[in-house]
Amino acid sequence: MAEPTLKELQARVRAFADDRDWGQFHSPRNLAMAVSVEANELLELYLWSTDDGPQPHVAERVPKVAEEAADVLMCLLNLCDRAGIDLADALDKKLIDADKKYPADKVRGQAKKYDEY
Amino acid sequence: MAEPTLKELQARVRAFADDRDWGQFHSPRNLAMAVSVEANELLELYLWSTDDGPQPHVAERVPKVAEEAADVLMCLLNLCDRAGIDLADALDKKLIDADKKYPADKVRGQAKKYDEY
Amino acid sequence: MAEPTLKELQARVRAFADDRDWGQFHSPRNLAMAVSVEANELLELYLWSTDDGPQPHVAERVPKVAEEAADVLMCLLNLCDRAGIDLADALDKKLIDADKKYPADKVRGQAKKYDEY
Amino acid sequence: MAEPTLKELQARVRAFADDRDWGQFHSPRNLAMAVSVEANELLELYLWSTDDGPQPHVAERVPKVAEEAADVLMCLLNLCDRAGIDLADALDKKLIDADKKYPADKVRGQAKKYDEY
Repeated sequence: MAEPTLKELQARVRAFADDRDWGQFHSPRNLAMAVSVEANELLELYLWSTDDGPQPHVAERVPKVAEEAADVLMCLLNLCDRAGIDLADALDKKLIDADKKYPADKVRGQAKKYDEY
Repeated sequence: MAEPTLKELQARVRAFADDRDWGQFHSPRNLAMAVSVEANELLELYLWSTDDGPQPHVAERVPKVAEEAADVLMCLLNLCDRAGIDLADALDKKLIDADKKYPADKVRGQAKKYDEY
Repeated sequence: MAEPTLKELQARVRAFADDRDWGQFHSPRNLAMAVSVEANELLELYLWSTDDGPQPHVAERVPKVAEEAADVLMCLLNLCDRAGIDLADALDKKLIDADKKYPADKVRGQAKKYDEY
Repeated sequence: MAEPTLKELQARVRAFADDRDWGQFHSPRNLAMAVSVEANELLELYLWSTDDGPQPHVAERVPKVAEEAADVLMCLLNLCDRAGIDLADALDKKLIDADKKYPADKVRGQAKKYDEY
């Protein structure tokens, strides 16, 4: 399979909802809530561990992390679809702006600058 | 510009972090936290409104929603990059599984089934 | 039973963790993550409904909402305990500051002011 | 000042909202969203650090952590007030149930049991 574009993934997510007539539940507000709920199911997988100790992702939890990450993306694409947002374009803009705001040669390896990021 | 694949977006996000030597802050756990934090900056834009009343996205807030959605995606792609997750593949699996679990002709328009989703 | 003070509740939550030697998992960072995770289990109970439609709390979900709210409070009290924060005092300060920032006679019923809140 | 009970804190939070006629924005759903948003402003203070490295709370960030923790409690008390939940009672029940589910002499110091918690 060729690598899918973000637009193609969004179209698949939309088709999935359309097939089930689930658009009626997909107010942007509901979807924004869903993104947070799914993000926290992802976060829960990293709870009670430490950064230096064994991390969940190193071992048996990777498939579960992948599943929860996919849930976040699905809700995010549904939200962008309903709110008329071109997510790839938004990320492009974000990276261009961030490149100006945090010039690589000025902030390299600095947690302080990173902190404000 | 041709529509970017999710893989290409991930490579751009990785290059941005690499150029700044920010990988040292990018433990999967930190990135999972960042996904939640960004998801809630997105959620905040929908706070104090109602589903039936005017929604933030209809008007002047769309650009801000787009920005926050891009932040969520950036953190999510960084996490997948560090945890060795193929996000497009994970979403593909998720949709195939969900299609079996929620057959379109069985759950069409049902909030109850949706609820368990 | 007399109404418990917030301090008494914090002492009970601490004793519960101490009895199990769970303090070792209770870094403030872990507990801050746990507050967010529990807050989103609470939020999930309100997902896919609308503000004007029947709300989960009106009916059979109240006990579940109460349970999740208690989880949030437990994690929050654990965090304050570990970080040396007097939560009742912090809330007191917050209300005094908010009273100055949002004088009742200036902001009454205004969503706009509320928005910045 | 005598230590306030949780009920007294809830009454103060309610009075603050009533004085400003802000009850109209306080649907339980909005307040559940607000709890998550505030929980993530709290979480953000712990972002990009590690559990073993210097933690934000050790130093200059404690006052900020206290402020955000108070915001979480304020939203949580507003939610309980609107949803008719006795939060101290809910926490009491939670601790009694958890005590049965995780007997101190069985789970002492075990991350595994804790994990399922």
